[in-house]
Amino acid sequence: MLILVFNFFRALSLSYKKEICVHKVLFLPHNKEIRVKDGESLIRAAMEAGVHINASCGGEGVCGKCRVIIEKGKVDGGISEKLNKEDISKGYRQACLSAIISDIVVRVPIESEIDAGVLNMQSTPRRAALIKEINLEDLKEKGLFIPPVEKKYLKLSEPVAQNNRPDVTRIVGYLRKNYNKHHLEIELPVIRKAPDVIREKAFKVTATIANPVHETGLTRIINIQPGDTTDSNFAIAMDIGTTTIYGQLIDLKTGSVLSSYGDFNPQISYGEDVISRIVYAEKPGGLEKLHNVVIQSINKIIDRIIKHADVNADDISAITLAGNTTMTQLMLKVNPKYIRRSPYVPAAALYPPIKAADLGMNLSDHVTALVYPNVSSYIGGDIVAGVMGSGMYLSEEITLYMDIGTNAEIVIGNKDWLACAACSAGPAFEGGGIKFGMRATTGAIEDFSIDPFTLEPMNITIGNVRPKGICGSGLINMVATMFEMGIIDNLGKFNHELDTNRIRQVDGVYEYVLAFAHLTRIDRDIVLTEPDINNLIRAKGAMYSGGMTLLEEVGLSINNIDRIILAGGFGSFVDLEKAMIIGLLPEIDPDKIIFIGNGSLMGAKISSLTNRIRKDVVEVARKMTNFELSETASFMDNYVASLFLPHTDINLFPKLKARIEARKKGGGFENKVKSP
Amino acid sequence: MLILVFNFFRALSLSYKKEICVHKVLFLPHNKEIRVKDGESLIRAAMEAGVHINASCGGEGVCGKCRVIIEKGKVDGGISEKLNKEDISKGYRQACLSAIISDIVVRVPIESEIDAGVLNMQSTPRRAALIKEINLEDLKEKGLFIPPVEKKYLKLSEPVAQNNRPDVTRIVGYLRKNYNKHHLEIELPVIRKAPDVIREKAFKVTATIANPVHETGLTRIINIQPGDTTDSNFAIAMDIGTTTIYGQLIDLKTGSVLSSYGDFNPQISYGEDVISRIVYAEKPGGLEKLHNVVIQSINKIIDRIIKHADVNADDISAITLAGNTTMTQLMLKVNPKYIRRSPYVPAAALYPPIKAADLGMNLSDHVTALVYPNVSSYIGGDIVAGVMGSGMYLSEEITLYMDIGTNAEIVIGNKDWLACAACSAGPAFEGGGIKFGMRATTGAIEDFSIDPFTLEPMNITIGNVRPKGICGSGLINMVATMFEMGIIDNLGKFNHELDTNRIRQVDGVYEYVLAFAHLTRIDRDIVLTEPDINNLIRAKGAMYSGGMTLLEEVGLSINNIDRIILAGGFGSFVDLEKAMIIGLLPEIDPDKIIFIGNGSLMGAKISSLTNRIRKDVVEVARKMTNFELSETASFMDNYVASLFLPHTDINLFPKLKARIEARKKGGGFENKVKSP
Repeated sequence: MLILVFNFFRALSLSYKKEICVHKVLFLPHNKEIRVKDGESLIRAAMEAGVHINASCGGEGVCGKCRVIIEKGKVDGGISEKLNKEDISKGYRQACLSAIISDIVVRVPIESEIDAGVLNMQSTPRRAALIKEINLEDLKEKGLFIPPVEKKYLKLSEPVAQNNRPDVTRIVGYLRKNYNKHHLEIELPVIRKAPDVIREKAFKVTATIANPVHETGLTRIINIQPGDTTDSNFAIAMDIGTTTIYGQLIDLKTGSVLSSYGDFNPQISYGEDVISRIVYAEKPGGLEKLHNVVIQSINKIIDRIIKHADVNADDISAITLAGNTTMTQLMLKVNPKYIRRSPYVPAAALYPPIKAADLGMNLSDHVTALVYPNVSSYIGGDIVAGVMGSGMYLSEEITLYMDIGTNAEIVIGNKDWLACAACSAGPAFEGGGIKFGMRATTGAIEDFSIDPFTLEPMNITIGNVRPKGICGSGLINMVATMFEMGIIDNLGKFNHELDTNRIRQVDGVYEYVLAFAHLTRIDRDIVLTEPDINNLIRAKGAMYSGGMTLLEEVGLSINNIDRIILAGGFGSFVDLEKAMIIGLLPEIDPDKIIFIGNGSLMGAKISSLTNRIRKDVVEVARKMTNFELSETASFMDNYVASLFLPHTDINLFPKLKARIEARKKGGGFENKVKSP
Repeated sequence: MLILVFNFFRALSLSYKKEICVHKVLFLPHNKEIRVKDGESLIRAAMEAGVHINASCGGEGVCGKCRVIIEKGKVDGGISEKLNKEDISKGYRQACLSAIISDIVVRVPIESEIDAGVLNMQSTPRRAALIKEINLEDLKEKGLFIPPVEKKYLKLSEPVAQNNRPDVTRIVGYLRKNYNKHHLEIELPVIRKAPDVIREKAFKVTATIANPVHETGLTRIINIQPGDTTDSNFAIAMDIGTTTIYGQLIDLKTGSVLSSYGDFNPQISYGEDVISRIVYAEKPGGLEKLHNVVIQSINKIIDRIIKHADVNADDISAITLAGNTTMTQLMLKVNPKYIRRSPYVPAAALYPPIKAADLGMNLSDHVTALVYPNVSSYIGGDIVAGVMGSGMYLSEEITLYMDIGTNAEIVIGNKDWLACAACSAGPAFEGGGIKFGMRATTGAIEDFSIDPFTLEPMNITIGNVRPKGICGSGLINMVATMFEMGIIDNLGKFNHELDTNRIRQVDGVYEYVLAFAHLTRIDRDIVLTEPDINNLIRAKGAMYSGGMTLLEEVGLSINNIDRIILAGGFGSFVDLEKAMIIGLLPEIDPDKIIFIGNGSLMGAKISSLTNRIRKDVVEVARKMTNFELSETASFMDNYVASLFLPHTDINLFPKLKARIEARKKGGGFENKVKSP
């Protein structure tokens, strides 16, 4: 069993997605080299390498500040009216407009001594989490593939007077004899179809069977089709998020995703967050309304992914759904009213298999909807799905699982124990409560660097267009970079002495100008304010202290964490080193941090592929000990201690501490201070 | 285990319904005494005792022939215009109008020597089968009561911050701890109700749980109600007959029937028998129509029995239904078209539990409909239910089970083996194909005796009114009596030599006049014809030869039968001795014949009371070997040999043989022969 568990975890964890990086880029005079994929933007490569290039306009090419010289190799583009013929002939290009198409050597022009100071910046290179995906072949090789739904081809004998047993008995007998399937149950809709279907192609049929989760359970015959359709067997995995709903159509023969589609959760019209939706659900007809609109949206996604993959709807054999506790209850039309009232009690932890059509889903009568279990009102099926999909519940290693989205949830534990908590992190990571905060869409500054001497920014936006605002990952990068450079202190306050027009006070509030109005898409200066920084600190403080509190409750400390799994759209963009600088993540080897993307969808998918997960999930959901942080005595102390960059106890972040000490020893960046 | 089986059978078989017979009636000059219940009709008592009293008018009092003298004791009534004052003062009464209210001595006046001849008639006394019913207390005492649905009272703790697990988890936890219920599953409609219901009466609730049939199965929580409702837990048992539908409301705490209701199956409008209904079901929309009307009728019965018993519909926890294969498929909307086509294949043997509401039944969402399994196209769930309800499948004794209705089915076997067959008996037992045949309703001659000298009849009708026709039991009694008296021969032909105006030839067909027109309700002579007798002989021959064939197939003979179980409305009225005389039943000790009434309903009821039956039924249905008599070589020989009264081989009926020989030795009743 131990071997099985180990193998299972290996099967889950071994398949990282690797991008193929083909070109070498050497940055001079920094002498930093990185590899990038073909066609990568040069300014993004510089950011990745930790090379600062002034750039205010987000990468649209209008500020003209990101001039570099291509000393060797070739780039595509990079030429604009900001460069004259002479510049171009000398090899000058705009980094933001250049696509790397060969190995290159790039020189970042150093036009002053102050500029040269950036060479001494010991900035952390951009570091994203490793991406993990499920690999069905691995599961199969390890013998852990217990398909929840299978198709079996049956060549039945024709009834004669001497053997005229009932049609269904004939089917069941064949499955018993040829596929060793016992304890079979056949459902009424299948019985209704059986007599005509088995006679349609001369008693040759395909039976779809749902295998039991436990060996002692019943195998259910859920569908029957004329002829041999064993090649077409599909499932749907779906994540019902507060903001977005994602669906995937999965080929159960190969495990591959044939199509996927995401859409906003239309319940948004009735309330942005879970609490306002619960309030709406309590109004007369409110629950039905919220249930109906989410089912409509689910149906839209089902229709799209079926159409896009061009499969027969009758070949869809199962659907698995995961969502937070409130989304789950609204989808199932279970009134969530006690979720928002102390002591915050959800209706149920586990849900039985439910006929999808009974929920209003546009799926055949034979399709059963499996809904991920919840742990508590604020640790829902989406988190349980992530725990299952990530395989953390099978590992010896103590893992910190963080899902950062509209709400933030953390799970800590290993194969022996699991503790979890929801953090009232606030919406800062999604741009909420930030003056120019926005979701991670086109125009959001997502990456940032700063020249510690000139305080000129390097803004990179999603879509490489002039900036419209700041998204969560950009915010983290800004605050982390400014803190490490000494531009803000550990309380998140700007150094007012710095000699720049970018740091200013407006209506008594200090702010840093990321982009002046003419270089934005909103014709206003885009700024980062001290209250913005404070909101971020409170958000990251809630998460970090939540993790600390959980660990303390089980007698461990933050140093015991062996690895981190990040889930949620946010996790794909976060620069791990920066997240450690602000104290959002504990300081561990970045190789020990894995990103799984939409953990909820990943869990829904893996449940579609193997009953092993369906079997284990009941135990895992039971094992996950929920902590209501507001009821946990130590939480408030930990929280207050976390309201610093990175923390009151800098010793928890030894690498950062060493870098800061080195910077101070080297005299810091003192020439940037205003002349008195 | 053997002891369990034995006890179970004893529990099932020990409780016969006994009528309390309080009055002694002595008939003179016959010197025959019987006991009757208070208020019994005197003429019926005479019939019971085998005492012939002339009576043509069925018991309505208009023919005035049934004069008797009450020599001792008292009767109620018996006086009419047919008796003058002197008669009355001498103690004359009309037997058909007299109710027995004390011990009495009755003299039947013998007005001629011919009359006195009846004293020598060795007629068999009227003998009905013992009636068997289910007794829940017996089941409980024997430890065989495994209730399929139970109610449990739960005093839950109120959620607090330190214990805010989900509502349903709280319920499940309580059941685990206090009632040792594990492997629990709770259904979505219950989850939807739970949060509000448990808060309605301060976290005190009653959970309705459906116990698994197999120990390893899931216990399902199917309902939850505020407060303590454990006293109210009911089930419905229903028999879906081709002609009639019967429902019973059963108290699951006591096992008693609180109300019952029967109605015609409205599908009759679309076809009298199963074949014509199958033909109708094949028309466009036909299946839906037949399904809908039977569900409407089921709903009408459900509404009636719920209303009549004055129970809360939400306290109905289960429904069990049994019907023949075609009725079952029509009820479940499973096209029966292959049932009527060679090789006669039904859709299914076993049906899964089905949500009653999904079938259109007016029952709460939590009610599961259990449908009795079929064996073959013509051995349906009604027969399987009878086999289960009668307990014959648990007995060592070789039992012959006969269900005589629109169709006739027989099962032979014991705990080790079971063989069954449907007999194309034709509708004679229900009055079909008989010139004055009718169903057993008011005005049908149901009992009959004849004076072997005068050939005057003693007709007793249902309702004691002037006759309208002949029902099945009356027909058997007539043919048996006339055969034993020598009025008809073993081919069913009348002795044309007899000196009476009651035997006559009309249009070349011989017939016996049961009642002349003025004493009937139809103003026509009611007669029994030779073709009528021939139809009866063919019907009983089919059944008897069916039984013989089954026995031969398993290497046994008719002598191996230890006991007989009669099911079907018909069985309650049949005079066992008479049935043996015509060769419908083999000649065995009448004490070994048990009548269970509606076996289908009995089986549905017992399944509502104990899961033992639900567990066993799968194995029993599988064990029942179906014989298609038309495909069984020996059947035709057996059938032809059975087309005699009682059979070509009179040695199969030794008691009858002895009586006939004794009659002949005594000279028979020769004085009745016409003078040449």
